[in-house]
Amino acid sequence: TAQFQVIKCKAAVAWAPRKPLVIEEIEVAPPQANEVRIKIVATSVCRSDLYCLLENLADICYPVVFGHEAAGIVESVGPGVTEFQPGDKVIPIFLSQCRECRFCKSPKTNHCENTSALLIREGMPGPPSRLSCKGKKLMLFGGTSTFSEYTVVNQIAVAKIDPAAPLDKVCLLGCGICTGYGAAVNVANVEPDSTCAVFGLGAVGLAAVMGCKAAGAKRIFAVDINPDKFEKAKVFGATDFVNPNDHSKPISQVLAEMTGGGVDYSLECVGNVEIMRSALESCVVGWGVSVIVGWTELKDLATRPVQLMVGRTWKGCLFGGFKSKDGVTQMVKAYLDKKVMVDEFITHNMTLDQINDAIELMKGGKCIRTVLSVSPK
Amino acid sequence: TAQFQVIKCKAAVAWAPRKPLVIEEIEVAPPQANEVRIKIVATSVCRSDLYCLLENLADICYPVVFGHEAAGIVESVGPGVTEFQPGDKVIPIFLSQCRECRFCKSPKTNHCENTSALLIREGMPGPPSRLSCKGKKLMLFGGTSTFSEYTVVNQIAVAKIDPAAPLDKVCLLGCGICTGYGAAVNVANVEPDSTCAVFGLGAVGLAAVMGCKAAGAKRIFAVDINPDKFEKAKVFGATDFVNPNDHSKPISQVLAEMTGGGVDYSLECVGNVEIMRSALESCVVGWGVSVIVGWTELKDLATRPVQLMVGRTWKGCLFGGFKSKDGVTQMVKAYLDKKVMVDEFITHNMTLDQINDAIELMKGGKCIRTVLSVSPK
Repeated sequence: TAQFQVIKCKAAVAWAPRKPLVIEEIEVAPPQANEVRIKIVATSVCRSDLYCLLENLADICYPVVFGHEAAGIVESVGPGVTEFQPGDKVIPIFLSQCRECRFCKSPKTNHCENTSALLIREGMPGPPSRLSCKGKKLMLFGGTSTFSEYTVVNQIAVAKIDPAAPLDKVCLLGCGICTGYGAAVNVANVEPDSTCAVFGLGAVGLAAVMGCKAAGAKRIFAVDINPDKFEKAKVFGATDFVNPNDHSKPISQVLAEMTGGGVDYSLECVGNVEIMRSALESCVVGWGVSVIVGWTELKDLATRPVQLMVGRTWKGCLFGGFKSKDGVTQMVKAYLDKKVMVDEFITHNMTLDQINDAIELMKGGKCIRTVLSVSPK
Repeated sequence: TAQFQVIKCKAAVAWAPRKPLVIEEIEVAPPQANEVRIKIVATSVCRSDLYCLLENLADICYPVVFGHEAAGIVESVGPGVTEFQPGDKVIPIFLSQCRECRFCKSPKTNHCENTSALLIREGMPGPPSRLSCKGKKLMLFGGTSTFSEYTVVNQIAVAKIDPAAPLDKVCLLGCGICTGYGAAVNVANVEPDSTCAVFGLGAVGLAAVMGCKAAGAKRIFAVDINPDKFEKAKVFGATDFVNPNDHSKPISQVLAEMTGGGVDYSLECVGNVEIMRSALESCVVGWGVSVIVGWTELKDLATRPVQLMVGRTWKGCLFGGFKSKDGVTQMVKAYLDKKVMVDEFITHNMTLDQINDAIELMKGGKCIRTVLSVSPK
């Protein structure tokens, strides 16, 4: 049967850092114990793919298949998989939810002790990968490797979603939208009538704006040095727009003056340690909460201790604090119920063959999200 | 009447940074509107006095009278003061509680918008001071200046306490004990059966240990490079003792190994940015909370963003998150009800004349708290 066959299919392979990806024919071995082989229908490019390809070279081994924001259909399952069967619509996730570790059992966190086994670490053999090309094993990126027509993912990192969900839309719920929206709703715990600031208006930042609005924020400051993003931010609920380049003062001071002391909540959605500092210091003393959402691992963040001692809180999160499988399933439902926007994030549609064009668009800040159709629906 | 008279009395005057204090006869003018003139009965030396005298010279103007951890008796009150009358036992506090600003009205914070008017700031004229010596105005330190037989404090920074309270004990509730205890109970919100680590076992750290125990912590790691402090830490409830000098690994790794991943709560009670980092990184991923309690303003704190993104929270507080007047009144009551320890912090008793000896004891780490008797009881 299908589950014992090697599948030959197309994938975008990264053979080396900072080089264009190459569309290759690859081999995808059958799923092993607890694994699910997924036909990827749509994937999008997230900034973290680019961060690993272009900036933080230490944590990636090559060759690798990038991609971690996608949706697809289960093709076959390995031994021990009971939650999924062929034909299920699913979204793979870079963060697992094993439901058995002490973190999964706690309502306080979306961390899962078993995620680390799915990630590439310097000096480690890397997670099991069923992908190979020209006789070489391809590293599994983020536990998912979705820039491929087929991939094999551990069942603890796959969410089953409503069969009615359009995969070329909900693929975005595999990372960016949940990451930003959840940061506001689950981690900052934005309260009604509060004042928020979102730094960086890519997909994650826009989703954070949407989260602030859903939580009932009264004023939402959208902050970006690219004023082209402001129109889109308005769609998601931003009420005020600040371009740091328009001001000679530090942006924390500008926001303090505009709000009578600072915002109640700030969300850093860029992945820049200087902006993390600005975001923290833009919060009001006493109860301001700043959440780090954008990813970077290249430098330390910093601030003066007094910035915390006057009552601010600095937090961070991955995947918006959503327990990954539960969160994706729930966010897909919220989309189908028209409670969260997804279509509005999609600025471009392409095919997997055009992935290098999609990467260039994102590098140039010219898109919010480009959805790549992968296998035929 | 008394309230219109200038009082001549003794005080320990700091004429210049890094010099011994000098016992001088000073003049204490009558209290003006909203002010309370207090006969200080007992004061203790807190590390923040030394920090300002010896380390952070930028924020202090000279001459100045240090001291901010004390208890006394109201001698007279200025116009507009209705909450106090002569004879009331009181504790002055460096943090105000005006009860009228948006912070005082919120249950989320102990910040008070009016505190800043009581503090010395570089380039500012400084808060009103009624103290002078040899024709020179003496700066009011921390809004309190308690190294003096008499001082004048704004009523928003004075707590009325139970007349039964022994002033030579409860003076410690004016800063250090509330600061450490409250950090555990109010800010970290230590939960029953949790695991805690307290870095630095001075009075603030020991009070943090006491707070962790009161909150029901199961294991309390006491961390200090001076093992002489461990015996005292045990008195307050510490269960495990770690001397970083006994280990070649980073202390965060040592604690992670001892706890299977890190502590639930950590409290930095030293005022050292490297230890702040260690304390944060000693917390378990997912839900670890680290609270900065020790004061320093000389350097930035730092960590890698991922340390927060994996679910840790970094907070700070002043005065242990206690609304200052309410907190002091309540902690004095708790002491009288034998619910918190105070006497156990006192290792030395001296008189105001011996203040330079008390300072030397603290510099050498030879005391927990030295109580100086000031005016006769």
